Amino acid sequence: MNKTLTSVTEVPVKFSDVDSMQIAWHGIYVRYFEDARESFGKQYGIGYLDVFSHGFMIPIVHIDCDYKSPLKYGDTAIIEATFKDSDAAKICFEYKVYSKSDNRLVAIGNSVQVFMDTNYELYLTIPQFLIEWKEKYLK
Amino acid sequence: MNKTLTSVTEVPVKFSDVDSMQIAWHGIYVRYFEDARESFGKQYGIGYLDVFSHGFMIPIVHIDCDYKSPLKYGDTAIIEATFKDSDAAKICFEYKVYSKSDNRLVAIGNSVQVFMDTNYELYLTIPQFLIEWKEKYLK
Amino acid sequence: MNKTLTSVTEVPVKFSDVDSMQIAWHGIYVRYFEDARESFGKQYGIGYLDVFSHGFMIPIVHIDCDYKSPLKYGDTAIIEATFKDSDAAKICFEYKVYSKSDNRLVAIGNSVQVFMDTNYELYLTIPQFLIEWKEKYLK
Amino acid sequence: MNKTLTSVTEVPVKFSDVDSMQIAWHGIYVRYFEDARESFGKQYGIGYLDVFSHGFMIPIVHIDCDYKSPLKYGDTAIIEATFKDSDAAKICFEYKVYSKSDNRLVAIGNSVQVFMDTNYELYLTIPQFLIEWKEKYLK
Repeated sequence: MNKTLTSVTEVPVKFSDVDSMQIAWHGIYVRYFEDARESFGKQYGIGYLDVFSHGFMIPIVHIDCDYKSPLKYGDTAIIEATFKDSDAAKICFEYKVYSKSDNRLVAIGNSVQVFMDTNYELYLTIPQFLIEWKEKYLK
Repeated sequence: MNKTLTSVTEVPVKFSDVDSMQIAWHGIYVRYFEDARESFGKQYGIGYLDVFSHGFMIPIVHIDCDYKSPLKYGDTAIIEATFKDSDAAKICFEYKVYSKSDNRLVAIGNSVQVFMDTNYELYLTIPQFLIEWKEKYLK
Repeated sequence: MNKTLTSVTEVPVKFSDVDSMQIAWHGIYVRYFEDARESFGKQYGIGYLDVFSHGFMIPIVHIDCDYKSPLKYGDTAIIEATFKDSDAAKICFEYKVYSKSDNRLVAIGNSVQVFMDTNYELYLTIPQFLIEWKEKYLK
Repeated sequence: MNKTLTSVTEVPVKFSDVDSMQIAWHGIYVRYFEDARESFGKQYGIGYLDVFSHGFMIPIVHIDCDYKSPLKYGDTAIIEATFKDSDAAKICFEYKVYSKSDNRLVAIGNSVQVFMDTNYELYLTIPQFLIEWKEKYLK
């Protein structure tokens, strides 16, 4: 049984994030997910620059988000990013977004990333550095 | 058998849309979908302002996107938005994004919107104006 | 002689902020300035919601920014916002952006905001709440 | 006496561009200016890719914008970009933004770009390709 790795990131809802319905625009959540991935990457040594140093880029190939409840200006989003282990050459995260003011669940989402080398060729086997990272962090 | 309504929108990939992998940032596609919904709304008389004039807001409750191939700076995204008819009180679109330069399929996605009145209360039956709109456009 | 009020805000440069020149896109600095104004507003009780509670909106009427040096992905922007006192019915800020990694000055800018009531009418005299705020914080 | 080169670009105000004051967010104008520069570049053969093909990048070193009147959702921005000739190694544009619905002047702004080679070194003399471009277009 592997460990579950989660990072928690707080992002205040900014004036420019709010749309004319007075709620955080739905597209902002893609940035929240990115913020959460970056926090996770920093915390567990698997950020974009770490991955790039091993010769890989990790473009997004899938995003989904279900919106449960709105965030308003003045509120703060708490984004939990959980690494979903996979046997494929993919990096999968699940996200849960909460409102800090009242702990409401605001949104749930997922992302999938693949490995591309610096010639933009898709890499179909799990890179060695990720195998070692999983060995270190998930076991 | 109902008609299928589709609008086609062209959006050039801008310098500020491109990330450090030299491709259109994945979050931009949420804007492409919004651009396509707005074009659809203008073309078929069901834009945000039309809907608002009937006393409703239509917040997004679901977004997904699968990325098939990258868009580069200098290219133009062609976004097809197709109205997916539903018996529920929802507005559903499917999106296909193509690269104008070579007709490559770049991404596929979906959105779901619900009806909220101006008191931010969810509306669980199909509003009369949408029934009439469907009668006019889909039959 | 009045006091000088300054707030200091840190914002990491995110992947989606970086353009194809591998540096923070110039338009992001307008968001940095907004982030800094929001921090200032929270710290000194003069945020958008405070102002709105007095019956005013404070739209931006001027922005300028001089870029001195680039910010890269992985770096963090430190934004100093300083309230520039004025006899006119305006709110003026000066911004200095530094790179956290090496304390380089990255950009200098300014913003000017005016007062509008909730009927979108420009307000040409300094609102009473701002006079009281200045009395409390600047003297 | 040199010719004045101007391009005209139309950009609809999108739902996600509008803030909670129901007007186009001030930061969007930086994107309008960029859109206008790109249109100008395409029209007169001096876009980012043209410049890059000569071995140069042209980062922004100055932006300013004065906001005269708001743009609302449903309106369309018309952006005029005018090339301001300069004896320095700089590319300067002036922008005028109008509301399409009533021809109101909405904003005026400026940008300044400098030349950097691909080693990120500032280039202090006017590149030969720009001298030739001016000869062709401005005389």
